[in-house]
Amino acid sequence: MCRFLIYRGRGMFMSDLLTKADRSLIHQSFKAREREEPLNGDGFGVGWYSPEIDTTPCAFTSTTPAWSNRNLHRLAEKIRSPCFFAHVRAATPGLVVSEVNCHPFEHGRFLWMHNGAVGEFLKIRRPLRESLDDELYNFIQGTTDSEHAFAVFLNYLKPYMNGYTLSDLADAMSATIEQLNVWTRAAEVARPCRYNFAVTDGHNIVATRYSSDPETLIESLYVSVGDRFENIDGRYRMAPTEADNRAIIITSEPLTDELSDWQEVPINHMVTVSPEMHLDIKPVH
Amino acid sequence: MCRFLIYRGRGMFMSDLLTKADRSLIHQSFKAREREEPLNGDGFGVGWYSPEIDTTPCAFTSTTPAWSNRNLHRLAEKIRSPCFFAHVRAATPGLVVSEVNCHPFEHGRFLWMHNGAVGEFLKIRRPLRESLDDELYNFIQGTTDSEHAFAVFLNYLKPYMNGYTLSDLADAMSATIEQLNVWTRAAEVARPCRYNFAVTDGHNIVATRYSSDPETLIESLYVSVGDRFENIDGRYRMAPTEADNRAIIITSEPLTDELSDWQEVPINHMVTVSPEMHLDIKPVH
Amino acid sequence: MCRFLIYRGRGMFMSDLLTKADRSLIHQSFKAREREEPLNGDGFGVGWYSPEIDTTPCAFTSTTPAWSNRNLHRLAEKIRSPCFFAHVRAATPGLVVSEVNCHPFEHGRFLWMHNGAVGEFLKIRRPLRESLDDELYNFIQGTTDSEHAFAVFLNYLKPYMNGYTLSDLADAMSATIEQLNVWTRAAEVARPCRYNFAVTDGHNIVATRYSSDPETLIESLYVSVGDRFENIDGRYRMAPTEADNRAIIITSEPLTDELSDWQEVPINHMVTVSPEMHLDIKPVH
Amino acid sequence: MCRFLIYRGRGMFMSDLLTKADRSLIHQSFKAREREEPLNGDGFGVGWYSPEIDTTPCAFTSTTPAWSNRNLHRLAEKIRSPCFFAHVRAATPGLVVSEVNCHPFEHGRFLWMHNGAVGEFLKIRRPLRESLDDELYNFIQGTTDSEHAFAVFLNYLKPYMNGYTLSDLADAMSATIEQLNVWTRAAEVARPCRYNFAVTDGHNIVATRYSSDPETLIESLYVSVGDRFENIDGRYRMAPTEADNRAIIITSEPLTDELSDWQEVPINHMVTVSPEMHLDIKPVH
Repeated sequence: MCRFLIYRGRGMFMSDLLTKADRSLIHQSFKAREREEPLNGDGFGVGWYSPEIDTTPCAFTSTTPAWSNRNLHRLAEKIRSPCFFAHVRAATPGLVVSEVNCHPFEHGRFLWMHNGAVGEFLKIRRPLRESLDDELYNFIQGTTDSEHAFAVFLNYLKPYMNGYTLSDLADAMSATIEQLNVWTRAAEVARPCRYNFAVTDGHNIVATRYSSDPETLIESLYVSVGDRFENIDGRYRMAPTEADNRAIIITSEPLTDELSDWQEVPINHMVTVSPEMHLDIKPVH
Repeated sequence: MCRFLIYRGRGMFMSDLLTKADRSLIHQSFKAREREEPLNGDGFGVGWYSPEIDTTPCAFTSTTPAWSNRNLHRLAEKIRSPCFFAHVRAATPGLVVSEVNCHPFEHGRFLWMHNGAVGEFLKIRRPLRESLDDELYNFIQGTTDSEHAFAVFLNYLKPYMNGYTLSDLADAMSATIEQLNVWTRAAEVARPCRYNFAVTDGHNIVATRYSSDPETLIESLYVSVGDRFENIDGRYRMAPTEADNRAIIITSEPLTDELSDWQEVPINHMVTVSPEMHLDIKPVH
Repeated sequence: MCRFLIYRGRGMFMSDLLTKADRSLIHQSFKAREREEPLNGDGFGVGWYSPEIDTTPCAFTSTTPAWSNRNLHRLAEKIRSPCFFAHVRAATPGLVVSEVNCHPFEHGRFLWMHNGAVGEFLKIRRPLRESLDDELYNFIQGTTDSEHAFAVFLNYLKPYMNGYTLSDLADAMSATIEQLNVWTRAAEVARPCRYNFAVTDGHNIVATRYSSDPETLIESLYVSVGDRFENIDGRYRMAPTEADNRAIIITSEPLTDELSDWQEVPINHMVTVSPEMHLDIKPVH
Repeated sequence: MCRFLIYRGRGMFMSDLLTKADRSLIHQSFKAREREEPLNGDGFGVGWYSPEIDTTPCAFTSTTPAWSNRNLHRLAEKIRSPCFFAHVRAATPGLVVSEVNCHPFEHGRFLWMHNGAVGEFLKIRRPLRESLDDELYNFIQGTTDSEHAFAVFLNYLKPYMNGYTLSDLADAMSATIEQLNVWTRAAEVARPCRYNFAVTDGHNIVATRYSSDPETLIESLYVSVGDRFENIDGRYRMAPTEADNRAIIITSEPLTDELSDWQEVPINHMVTVSPEMHLDIKPVH
């Protein structure tokens, strides 16, 4: 389900990644290649940081398809940000297409999005909710497994709210997946659970590629790192970096046909990005 | 919050009550008279029965204001029903305007709507949800106190699902209000709770006018009974009946300026309508 | 662009053709087979007649994708009609997705829909509009070539408004296509123009399969006639008729995999259906 | 019809004027004071300039009421601009609530909005359209008198497109109103025409307060000038300037109860603001 992308680096217009690149996210919204069902038309969302203004993100979400949303096209042309999340949704059958179910989800300075699904989610929703304190219990507005997983993550992060590190975020992410596994095993969920989660505070990023049964079903995930993602004679490329990373893209599918620019994230691994743009890939757990 | 209306009688076009009468529900959507705030522009819904087709209702809901919704105007002109519910919403501040939060709510053959609010609803939402069985727990799609109250009502009705009477519906309604009072008292809710609830299965109707503190704050409710609600020379009137009731309207506000046609429901009373169109008004509890 | 279907016959629930058949119109909204681009997610519309009420149609249109529209699913389950039109839209690139651009279009007792496009429509819009009388000039609400073509058709029909025959409708349709050809030739439009138009008054139907350059590009169109379109053991079939037609479906793509049930309309032909259910196929012009 | 506001000055968050001030534009969307009908719930729009990015504006428009639009609230908190337009709409009865009818309208570097109405607009629409060249004829997407008037304005401005002055903009505005008067007189329009128009390119502003029959009906318009519009202890004030203007607000209604901060624009006058923030008020024509 769904396609997402993450950008961190120098200020970049969202339109470069959302509408202009050959395999832009909006292209993926109607013609995804690495999913059996190519359509992600059940709403979308973007969230971005403007460090010159403050530390919390701004978000724009809608239940209409991304490809025809005039406001999205207008905003993407004018908003330049050093860190943004974008998501196009294919609703889990039976789940309502509603604005409260659009990704990315926001909480304080965090953004969260998800590609995948908790198999038979309703079987674990009650114990999941019961594990939350009142603030997080009431934070949940919609019915998606994705937003509920975000609440579990925030619950784990709570003790560190006044001063966490990238490592704390990665640990909270691992703990979230582990706890979801505990609940789905207890509920005897048979269908594979796929947890391509992504979270950021505008500086740190954690993104996972995980399936409880990776041989049967796993969502794709790629990273591209370099000096800058640039348009040369009408084609986008990731220009190589000579020293430090200055541009990082994490995405469900490559945004261009230059496949050498895109590295597949190994199965059941997580990508972490530090405030200094150091990128690391390591196993979940 | 909100305005609603109920019709039962001979097949009638929804437009007669929704758009054409002087004080039609759509007129109330932008100029309610018996509320401090005259605006009910946060979505609407209609639900109606077509006994010639089957026993479950059809519903049409939207988050846009009722007054400008082309589909509502078109449907209301063409749909003739012997029993329908209609509702215009003024969202509780802070609650999301979302399609899943539009009234009337549906469950099997039942429709439910609400005008009022559980004061400080979040204080009682957790115990309320815990009291529900899994089917009703998962039935809830939105975040309104109204839909949660419907689930409580259905929980009380469960033992009678295979053969209930009007009296069972009235008892379940009383039990719902009593239980809400237990929870709000336990949570030390200070603000008055207002429960103008309405439920129907297309034949039986129960509608309440209730406030936990009726002297401070109570929503209005009126009934009109007669032979037929008709348009004579451009003005709507309830034609008197010589024998049995053949048309019953229950509404937050009178639909016409002929005030003698409209009887105020006493404070903390409920109106019941039997399949044979017998109308009764009695205290809640 | 777009997919549409037409039904005439005994009262039938719209859901049988819109959501339940294997290749239902909603299935075509995300997986059309006979178009290069399989997606028709830029809004939809249904229009139907209720002869027991009056002679003008009711319509329900929306800019959201058909597959996720709760109101469409609810209405289609409950509305039974002897004549209805349904349409899923793939917007011409550059045209706004707006409610006023949704098919079917309504005028008095007529419904109109279109699959195809006037090539380079803006080149002919001015003379087209100038040819209209004030009533039809002001009737146009949106920006589609389809609605403008409807106005041209109505302009031709005007002299017959008080008593037309199926033959008059067919002539007005031919004249509309001929006039569009005059305008596009004068404007030196190079791209093929495709005019799969459909019009009905609830009794008569005219539907065309036409391209100004049929060898390069033509939209598909099929008819199925029989006694009834029925669901047998979970599969829909058109039951053969022994005498008169009692069910007629005209559709951009077959609704089932029983291909023997579906007859392709020849290139540049029109299908006419009389009030007595007589179906005829003849060349345009 | 409608309420609007204009800001020019130092970069300011849109939320200060749209949501936070006592009589903010969103407050006016449901409780306008200087209109007989206090409701402006038929959509809204904002347009703003980001000179650090480029010279063309960004716009965000929607058909839902401003007061409940989550995206508007989120964007207004994060977008800081030295020049923005905002508009809440009360649709002319009979006109469709559609995204293409939302103000402000955009063309190149210009934004345009309107409060008022051409009386009996359809009577003059044909000659108006005929007066436009093809580019402006095709520019029009919707059905409002407002967008059509914008096209007339742009038609007058065309000769100056490569280098206009504030004076040219003011002349084009006067010519637009004069031409509308010619058409409405020729068409024997009896109802007063009200032309509170506003146009900007991000540096120059022209805004009119005009009625063809000002004694019968005229829309309100106010200006406030000073050093900055600031929030002091929870109340907004326009801080006086000692030298040059550094903040200018032009608005249908005062945004605060400090009435001394707001100067009424005289009847049938126009306000002009130069790139150097010089404000002038002079008669139309």
